[in-house]
Amino acid sequence: MINNPSVLNIDPNLKSWIPYSEDSDFPIQNLPLGVFSRNQDPKKLCSIIGDQIIDLSSLAGLSEALGISNSFFTNNSLNPLMAHGKATLRNIRRYLSEVFSTQNLNRASFEKSLIPRQQVELHLPIQCGDYTDFYSSKEHATNVGIMFRDPANALLPNWLHLPVGYHGRASSIVVSGTPVVRPAGQIVSKDGEPPIYSKSRQLDFELEMAFVVGKGNDLAHPIPLSQTKEHIHGLMLFNDWSARDIQKWEYVPLGPFLGKNFCSTISPWLIDLDALEPFAVENPIQDPQPLDYLHQTGKNNYNIELEVLLNGHPISHSNTKYLYWSMFQQLAHHTVNGCNMRIGDICASGTISGPTPNSYGSMLELAWKGTKPITLPDGSTRVFLQDGDQLELKAFAQGNGFRIGFGECKGTIVS
Amino acid sequence: MINNPSVLNIDPNLKSWIPYSEDSDFPIQNLPLGVFSRNQDPKKLCSIIGDQIIDLSSLAGLSEALGISNSFFTNNSLNPLMAHGKATLRNIRRYLSEVFSTQNLNRASFEKSLIPRQQVELHLPIQCGDYTDFYSSKEHATNVGIMFRDPANALLPNWLHLPVGYHGRASSIVVSGTPVVRPAGQIVSKDGEPPIYSKSRQLDFELEMAFVVGKGNDLAHPIPLSQTKEHIHGLMLFNDWSARDIQKWEYVPLGPFLGKNFCSTISPWLIDLDALEPFAVENPIQDPQPLDYLHQTGKNNYNIELEVLLNGHPISHSNTKYLYWSMFQQLAHHTVNGCNMRIGDICASGTISGPTPNSYGSMLELAWKGTKPITLPDGSTRVFLQDGDQLELKAFAQGNGFRIGFGECKGTIVS
Repeated sequence: MINNPSVLNIDPNLKSWIPYSEDSDFPIQNLPLGVFSRNQDPKKLCSIIGDQIIDLSSLAGLSEALGISNSFFTNNSLNPLMAHGKATLRNIRRYLSEVFSTQNLNRASFEKSLIPRQQVELHLPIQCGDYTDFYSSKEHATNVGIMFRDPANALLPNWLHLPVGYHGRASSIVVSGTPVVRPAGQIVSKDGEPPIYSKSRQLDFELEMAFVVGKGNDLAHPIPLSQTKEHIHGLMLFNDWSARDIQKWEYVPLGPFLGKNFCSTISPWLIDLDALEPFAVENPIQDPQPLDYLHQTGKNNYNIELEVLLNGHPISHSNTKYLYWSMFQQLAHHTVNGCNMRIGDICASGTISGPTPNSYGSMLELAWKGTKPITLPDGSTRVFLQDGDQLELKAFAQGNGFRIGFGECKGTIVS
Repeated sequence: MINNPSVLNIDPNLKSWIPYSEDSDFPIQNLPLGVFSRNQDPKKLCSIIGDQIIDLSSLAGLSEALGISNSFFTNNSLNPLMAHGKATLRNIRRYLSEVFSTQNLNRASFEKSLIPRQQVELHLPIQCGDYTDFYSSKEHATNVGIMFRDPANALLPNWLHLPVGYHGRASSIVVSGTPVVRPAGQIVSKDGEPPIYSKSRQLDFELEMAFVVGKGNDLAHPIPLSQTKEHIHGLMLFNDWSARDIQKWEYVPLGPFLGKNFCSTISPWLIDLDALEPFAVENPIQDPQPLDYLHQTGKNNYNIELEVLLNGHPISHSNTKYLYWSMFQQLAHHTVNGCNMRIGDICASGTISGPTPNSYGSMLELAWKGTKPITLPDGSTRVFLQDGDQLELKAFAQGNGFRIGFGECKGTIVS
């Protein structure tokens, strides 16, 4: 059972004096955190409303209101701020929601800290020590099992008992917009023949949602499921680029390696779990019931709409609510053996596929192992990604008259 | 083919005015780097001769000789020093070998920087961003294949073509001496039955050698095999503790996770590759010949004797020369897809088993899946590790009248 710690609810009817449309990713109810730079200046912390970046380091009254040094905001990552604790992060969002609401008539002193989005560069906002990738979509695991193993026994025996996961590579996580260089490696071009060295011919994306650890645990001190929410600061969109041909040849018996670790793209904004709380929904029913340390009740998933665009054309619509294993179960499982998490660690969900073919979260599934090519508006077809292709993930939770969006998570394939 | 960059050879006949025996791990030819603290003082960098810690931050003339700030030595990790480049690290060893040699008669000013080993605490000497574990011993992979898969086809098809590897957990790497808490998790106690939550009943060690990256590479810029040696600073002993029952249930299809990430123990000293150069030997013959990017000639392995002690009793003798895939091949393979390495990254070899049963590098193999219990001098037997057991790894390269040792790599199992 998830114990719900106090949450900062920003009034869904609150309006900001910064203008934005109803479909902006960043209404005053969102207020995510990020890291930006302008020209050649050092990196600093920011938030965003509409298309206005809020420079936290210069925001009048903020450090005084929080009782912390302004140096937290002239940092190149959110980690030190997260280390200060969730209460401080809540107070930042509370302060921003007050000074930028229409109820605040003293606007001049805060306007000075606004910078148009186009004038800044956004960076990887966190320093990630360890990155873990789960495999928590039953639809995705089933699809892969049907394609590569036994359609009658698509799920492996452990899948319904625990959130399967594995360690990924932290060094190659890049922020949205970074070009994705097609990887080379060993592939087997014809079954039974020796491998060759080649550029990957089966470059794919994976639509994932990642959570960011905001509070760590000591080695040998598992985080009980009931406390997991206090350890997760927020969510980010995640594209776990995959070279299927490299992966297929290398992955037995120890799992994916070079087929994954050449690049992962993450969105630049850390969306606070508090902002998503109104969109919490129940998980799919879990049968068999998991062991006690994974037994949850209540609303542990989120209704976040997901979209995938290939060269601007939508090719998939999914939703995080489809995930079989919740992120809280993922974190409880990850630490049940005493594994220690550190602030800034990233855990991604695994590919989030929905129940229908237009909700699958990878080219592998959308084009069903190359047998059902995707046709784009220009008449061209794809079974995997080509050089020059731009792949974008989008996500938002739809409120009444506003949405909590995730910003962009995109990359273009280069040779 | 490995391009041999210039190496610092310390004369094998050189003697130090610091006394030590012929079987000391730390003669004047070794001079590894570490991080220590005394009482409650901050961490600092050190080296060691015999049983005398050398406090680099106070060593007369060192920072002047190197032309670098002394603040490099009052750091809590070796990373910034490694970032300064291999030439600086060579110059440290050269300087130490000069001032502590018997040829130096001006000893008083250097004696002040010596501290008996027993008076200090040694720490994890590097900050590790990402940790990778390979699977490079043919004997180990074959043994595991025989036990768990098909004795007639023990090696999987990819094994002879590439150094199989997977990502491990960096956060839970601890320095020698840290207690190892027996992990809990899901295990299947009877085949075909549902999993239960339990403390692991099959806790094992793995005898491994790790290399530490001293120079990184940018994303999408592979390190060619010929340049790999310039990117590796040195070696450390590594125990990849493994909970076999947790691992067995969880590891399909994405590899080991909670069966490994509860703890890995590393020795406290970073042994410079230069010090091991005289002990370079050729690899086992590789058949089939690997693809060009992995094709090596010359001496790419090291003759380093390995020993495993269980409660002080030797249970295995192995050698790094048995490794099928060299660490240079491991690094070239790791980056062939463009994966970026960062200073301080750790890559471990995988369990190093030799050709005979008394050279196996894990309890799993030594007791052959529980069928051949190990008898200890007190008459007790083991198939896996029990609470209270102390497991120690040792390693040294034997020279003529001296040895390049690795120091201790040990841990005691606690409940």
